[in-house]
This record gives sequence, C-alpha cells and structure tokens, in this order.
Amino acid sequence: MLECIVTKFGGSSLANDEQFRKVRSILELEPTRLYLVPSAPGKRFPTDEKVTDLLYLCHHLASAGQPFEGQFVKIRERYLSIAQHLHLKVDAEGALEEVARGIREGRSRDWCASRGEYLCGLLIADYLGWRFVDAAEGVRFREDGTLDAEKTQELLSSLLKNREPAVVPGFYGAREDGEIVTFSRGGSDITGALVARAVDADVYENWTDVSGFLMADPRIVDGPAEISSITYKELRELSHMGASVLHEDAMFPVHRAGIPTNIRNTNKPYHPGTLISKNAPNEVSVPTITGIAGHQGYSVINVEKNMMNSEVGFGRKVLSVLEEYGISFEHMPTGIDSMCVVVKSELFEACREEILARLEALVDGSGSVSIADNLSIIATVGRGMVHNCGTAARLFSAMSRARINVRMIDQGSSELSIIVGVNDADFESAIRAIYHEFVG
Amino acid sequence: MLECIVTKFGGSSLANDEQFRKVRSILELEPTRLYLVPSAPGKRFPTDEKVTDLLYLCHHLASAGQPFEGQFVKIRERYLSIAQHLHLKVDAEGALEEVARGIREGRSRDWCASRGEYLCGLLIADYLGWRFVDAAEGVRFREDGTLDAEKTQELLSSLLKNREPAVVPGFYGAREDGEIVTFSRGGSDITGALVARAVDADVYENWTDVSGFLMADPRIVDGPAEISSITYKELRELSHMGASVLHEDAMFPVHRAGIPTNIRNTNKPYHPGTLISKNAPNEVSVPTITGIAGHQGYSVINVEKNMMNSEVGFGRKVLSVLEEYGISFEHMPTGIDSMCVVVKSELFEACREEILARLEALVDGSGSVSIADNLSIIATVGRGMVHNCGTAARLFSAMSRARINVRMIDQGSSELSIIVGVNDADFESAIRAIYHEFVG
Repeated sequence: MLECIVTKFGGSSLANDEQFRKVRSILELEPTRLYLVPSAPGKRFPTDEKVTDLLYLCHHLASAGQPFEGQFVKIRERYLSIAQHLHLKVDAEGALEEVARGIREGRSRDWCASRGEYLCGLLIADYLGWRFVDAAEGVRFREDGTLDAEKTQELLSSLLKNREPAVVPGFYGAREDGEIVTFSRGGSDITGALVARAVDADVYENWTDVSGFLMADPRIVDGPAEISSITYKELRELSHMGASVLHEDAMFPVHRAGIPTNIRNTNKPYHPGTLISKNAPNEVSVPTITGIAGHQGYSVINVEKNMMNSEVGFGRKVLSVLEEYGISFEHMPTGIDSMCVVVKSELFEACREEILARLEALVDGSGSVSIADNLSIIATVGRGMVHNCGTAARLFSAMSRARINVRMIDQGSSELSIIVGVNDADFESAIRAIYHEFVG
Repeated sequence: MLECIVTKFGGSSLANDEQFRKVRSILELEPTRLYLVPSAPGKRFPTDEKVTDLLYLCHHLASAGQPFEGQFVKIRERYLSIAQHLHLKVDAEGALEEVARGIREGRSRDWCASRGEYLCGLLIADYLGWRFVDAAEGVRFREDGTLDAEKTQELLSSLLKNREPAVVPGFYGAREDGEIVTFSRGGSDITGALVARAVDADVYENWTDVSGFLMADPRIVDGPAEISSITYKELRELSHMGASVLHEDAMFPVHRAGIPTNIRNTNKPYHPGTLISKNAPNEVSVPTITGIAGHQGYSVINVEKNMMNSEVGFGRKVLSVLEEYGISFEHMPTGIDSMCVVVKSELFEACREEILARLEALVDGSGSVSIADNLSIIATVGRGMVHNCGTAARLFSAMSRARINVRMIDQGSSELSIIVGVNDADFESAIRAIYHEFVG
C-alpha cells in the first residue's frame, strides 16, 4: 500500500510567502506527504500580530458596534501579499470580502476565528495545486460543542479516501446544521491528528518552528539537547509535569491509532525532529533519560495517626475528603502510621481550613494533620531507565552534590520516571543537577 | 523527686538461681530501680523447656483427663531449686501445691499459664526482700478480655504510690470478678510498661539476654552492629517491616507517657543496651541510619487508565475495592495515568481474581490492570537521614553496585525512612548492600 504522511503546518510556518515556499519544497521532498492541515498565518517577527488574534479583535469590535475595518485591512494585506508574491489564481480578494461581510453581518465568534485557517487553506491549496476540502464538511461537532469523534472519522475518511493530495484547514469544524465551531487555541494540531487517523497515515508530521522537543526547559537549562525519539507515555509524563508540548487532545487520536507523530522544523527541513511513537525503540543506544520536567507550588498534607497501618480503609477516607472538595492528588507517599498527599497548592487554597478540620476529625485526637507548602515536583522521565540499575543512584548523587534536600521520592508505578519533591527554592538547581548528570 | 526506674526481667534472666543473683546485683547497682516485673523462668540451655510451656501442657493434659503430674514435677523442680539455692523463706512448696490443685480442679487456661509469673514473683520478692503485689489486683481486664487501660492505671498507681520497692508479676491481670486473664505471649513487656506508666517512671528497663536491638537481621548480615539509641517512631517503622522487637502493645503506653525504654542485657549489666525514647538526641554524632528491616512476599497491583490524573476520585475508588475485601495497602506509588498498590500477597490470595475483575471494571476498557508478585520491601530507617542530602544517593549507589534493580521507591511521608521495593531474589543482597554502605 502507498505510504501516506499527513502534515500539519503551524502559524509561523505559513506566516508569509517565503514560508509558503518552504512548505512546498518540504512537500516536494517526499511525495507521500499527501495531506496538509494549515494553521492561520502567525507572527513573521516577534512583535507581529497573528491573523487569528486580528480576527477575534474584528469580531469583538463589530459586535460592540464599532468599526473593525482598520484591523481587517491588516488581515487583508497578509493574505493578498502572499497571493500576489506567489502569483496565485484563487480569488483571494473575493474570499476576503466574504469574510469581512460575515463579520459585519454578525456571524459567530467561532465562524470569524475559523476564517484564518479557511483562507490560508484556500491559498496553500491553490499554490500546491491540491484539492481544498473544507473542514466544515469533515470535522463534526455535537450540539453541545464537543467533538463527535466517530462521525468525524466517518466523514473525513470518506472525503479523503481516494488518496488525492488535499488541504484540510485546521482549528474548526461544523455542527450538523452547518454552524462553525472551533477547537480551543492550538486546535489545528487536533485537526491534523483527526486527518491522520482518518486516512490511517503512516506518520503525522507536525511542522513548527522548533526542531522537536527539548530535554529540559531552556529557561532553566542552558541550550538543552533535543529529544530524538520519545513514546506517547513518556511525553504524557513530561507534559503533565509542565513541559509545554502538543495539545493533549491532539496526541490521543493518533496515539490510539498507533500512528507516530513527528515534530519537525519548517526552517530546518532536514533535521529529523522528535519522533513520538507508541513503542519507540528501546535499544542500548537509547539515552538513559528522555527528558526532565517539573512544577512548583505543591503542598503536602501530612497525616499521622497511631496504628494507621492496622486500620483498613484509612487511606481511602483521607482521599474521600479531598474528593468531596474536587481535589485530585498527585502523589501519596506512605510510611508507618503516616501518609502524605501531594496536591497543587492552588487547588485547595479556598478550602484549606475546611479540609484540615475534616482530616483532624478523621485522626480524632490520636495523631496529627499538617500542611507543608512550597514543594516542587520534578519528573525525570525515560524508558531507558527501566533496565538500568544505576539511574536512581546517579540521580540522587547529582542532587546530593548540589546540596539539594530530597523531600519526597515516588517511583514504581510507571517504570518510566522517578519523581522527586524538593523545596521550591531548589527547583531550578535540581533540574540543572539532573540534566548535567545525565546529559552533560 | 526521687528518680524511679521500673525493671522488667525476661524468662532467660530468671531461668535459675544464678540468674536471680544477677538480677539482685543489677538492682543493687542502682537504688532507684524500685519496681520489678518478672516473667516466668525461661530456658537455661537451648533444649530446655520454658515454665509457661510446661504450664500450658499441664492444663492441656488435665483438661483432657490425662495425668499431668509427670510434667508438673519439672515445674516444681525449677522453682524449688531456686528457693533452696537462695535459701528463700517463702513457702514455695505450699504455693506450688496450690497451683497443682488448681490445675487438677480445672482452673482456666489463663489461670494456669499465669502461675509461672506469679510463682516467680513470689520467689524474687522474697529474695530481694521486696513487697509482692499480685498483678490480679493491679491489672484489670474487661469482660471481653481486653485490657482496661484506664482502670489499670488507677489501680496500679494507687497500689504503688508510696515508692516502696515492689515486685509485680508480668503477663496477667484479672477481670472485675477476679477471673485471671493473660496477655498474649510476651505480654510481661506490657505489664512492665503499664507499671512504668502508673508510677511515672523515668525509665522503663527491659532486661533480656541481648544487648539491645541490632541494625539488621543477623541471619542476613554477619554480626550486625547494635543500636544504641532509637526513637519510638523509628522502632515502629522497623518492627512493622519485620524487625522482631518488643510487643507492640508494650511500647504504646510508655511511648504515650513519654517514658524511655531501655533494652538491657542481664548477662552484660554494664552494656548500655538500646535506649528507645520519644525524642532521641538528633546530633551530628547520630549515625545516618538506625536500622534496616524488610519483608518478602508482596504483590504490586498495577492500574493504568488513560487520563486517570484528570479524574478526581479514581485513586479513592481503587482503594475502596481493596477495602471491601478487608485488604490494607502498604504503599501506593503513582505516576501519570497509572498507580500501583502494594499489598501483602497472602492478604489477597483468596480474592485475587475477584479484585482483578473489579478493578478491570473500574478501568472500563480504557486501560489495564495487572499484578506482579515476588516484591520485597526494605525500609532503611534513621532520624539521621532527615538533614542529610546524600542518604538517598548512597543508598541507591550501593544497590546499583550490587546490580540490584529498584522496582519501587517511596519516601517522603515519615522523613525517617526510605522504602525500596526489589525482587524477592534480591532481598538479602539488597539488605547487605545497604548495611555495608552505611555501617561498613
């Protein structure tokens, strides 16, 4: 069967005609790149405006009865400049006029925002000579505004079944009645994943302006290395702990379908980027750790109770109290007669005293309840850790040399990560110590 | 106020007249040793019989209508030999005859067993010239056979309020109606603790045949070092993990009352033994670790569920299932979308399949449940670890050098211990590796 790659290009990859040219040459490099999901044109330079932001602004002004044309002219210029420089045949003027009329006539906020991708799709399809497939026909939302994943799968696979190269604009879809609905910001990633699943792609390429994910936050570690391959599970552990990566909903459809995602850099088309897959190679050459991520601002609820360990159900009771207040916990280290529940501090700010009182009632005089704040949690993630006896030793040696006190350790559930808790004040130096131990 | 020490002497410390002499000289060394709680005479040599075992045997024979005198004669000889060698004035013959009559007349099993301590108390009181206080008058049990701690405190403090040296036999007490009730085996430790609390002792000395607790199981580590000082909390962590120490109920009353317990060796009266206290000194000189203990035969229930972390209450639901089957958990390491519950394998042997099915229903197709057996849990305990950054590093380095794979880590709740899980096959070598790293 013909190999098939779905590409999604982000806003910065489509910001101007020069970027459009790069996109075309990337597609020409690999003829199995059959489908393209574009975002709306993004920033060309740091202080530039994104087309989507301008569209939201126009809708806001129009719905407040104020003139929006001063803003719309910027949108117009962006698209017309691309069309002119690339000698496009599509009627960009007419399409832009239709969008302006829609804004003027009070079309919905979602409709207005979606036009960024719609127009961009029209232009890139024309430039590539590819078929344009309106996402309104392929991506279906329910009446309540949530994605109808099954119907979408059915519609998209039918629309794209003949493997003819096509452009499907990202970010939006429509309800049964034709009303346009958008995903949350960054939602073009989701459209790309839905298209990849619908055509059963071999790879879903997500083209952006970075050469893949970094092993650590570059604001903390100087020039961190790039991650060449990572599993969906590892990525989820890192992203849960604060690594800013893909839209979570954008990983789920392809992950489930077993389709790898490849993060690529439009400005460095030969860089292999980061490959995210279900079962990444787990060879000797895999680095011991894949990445480090962390978050500050956790609290530890410490519950001590005499003979707690002989009491079946005590842990469950403590969690029930938190659940009543809608608080999810991150970790729960247990000792003899004591347990800790680690939660995000912000989650229980409003009900801190109430929860304390409830837990004290549980302990009922034969123990104590206390809360310690300012805990940071750092996840060191890597499938290469599983069969490596020395990982924990190296990690804690590095922390020790950096004079960092380890307040909590949690390892064993995923086999993919070691979780440590340190004081907020030690957060950055702990990440640096771990990074330099394993990466250099 | 006069300092006051309560001493409890174990069975081997009172096994014959020679041991009685040692007890007296220990008491003479320190005149503030005002109260003595004796066990029944124990073994004089490895193949010897304990008086308590002989008493149980006599009761068993008598209640089966068989002659018990052949066994009772051994008991008789033990006590008479002591009385004769020490030239005691007490009517040992008469007291022994009364016990034999009680057995013959069908007195209760508890009554029969308690006579070992009763007789021993009579003899040692006579030898010391101290007052004999029958535990039946000072230790009160409820109708249901449980200790009435409040009433006992009231009775004992009234009986012993004048600080006149006295002997209170261990192991037994009585109900309101006078019926004798015993603690479980080893219960003289409890009597000693109750007496110590009642007289508000400065120290509770527990004299036995070892010079205190050892840092590790001598069957695993060759000649382990003795623990010179330990806190009640540390001791509880070690004993929970399998270190065989004091009767748990024997630590509770003195721990609560803030009275330190000193484990001493009757055969080495100048050895300081192990001091157990509420707030042991936490100085620089405190060794990093206090002790190591562990248990084999745990299972890990591994639950994975997509987006588990976004679901408030999932952890509680898993624990609720275990609670329904009366299963307490030891540890619960959590990751992203996954959690483990560590339980004693024997606890859920009977309901393993049922629990698996219930948890699979919870996961409901979007995850998996599995059980991994043969996990050993090792607790490395020490108050000296709290402010020592390098402890975890050293511990895991030692494990790594011994090529031991760490399956689980749980640290953070007590600040007193690091818990690691290893394969059962690595249990002993892990304990040895940790011991040699920290102790040498």
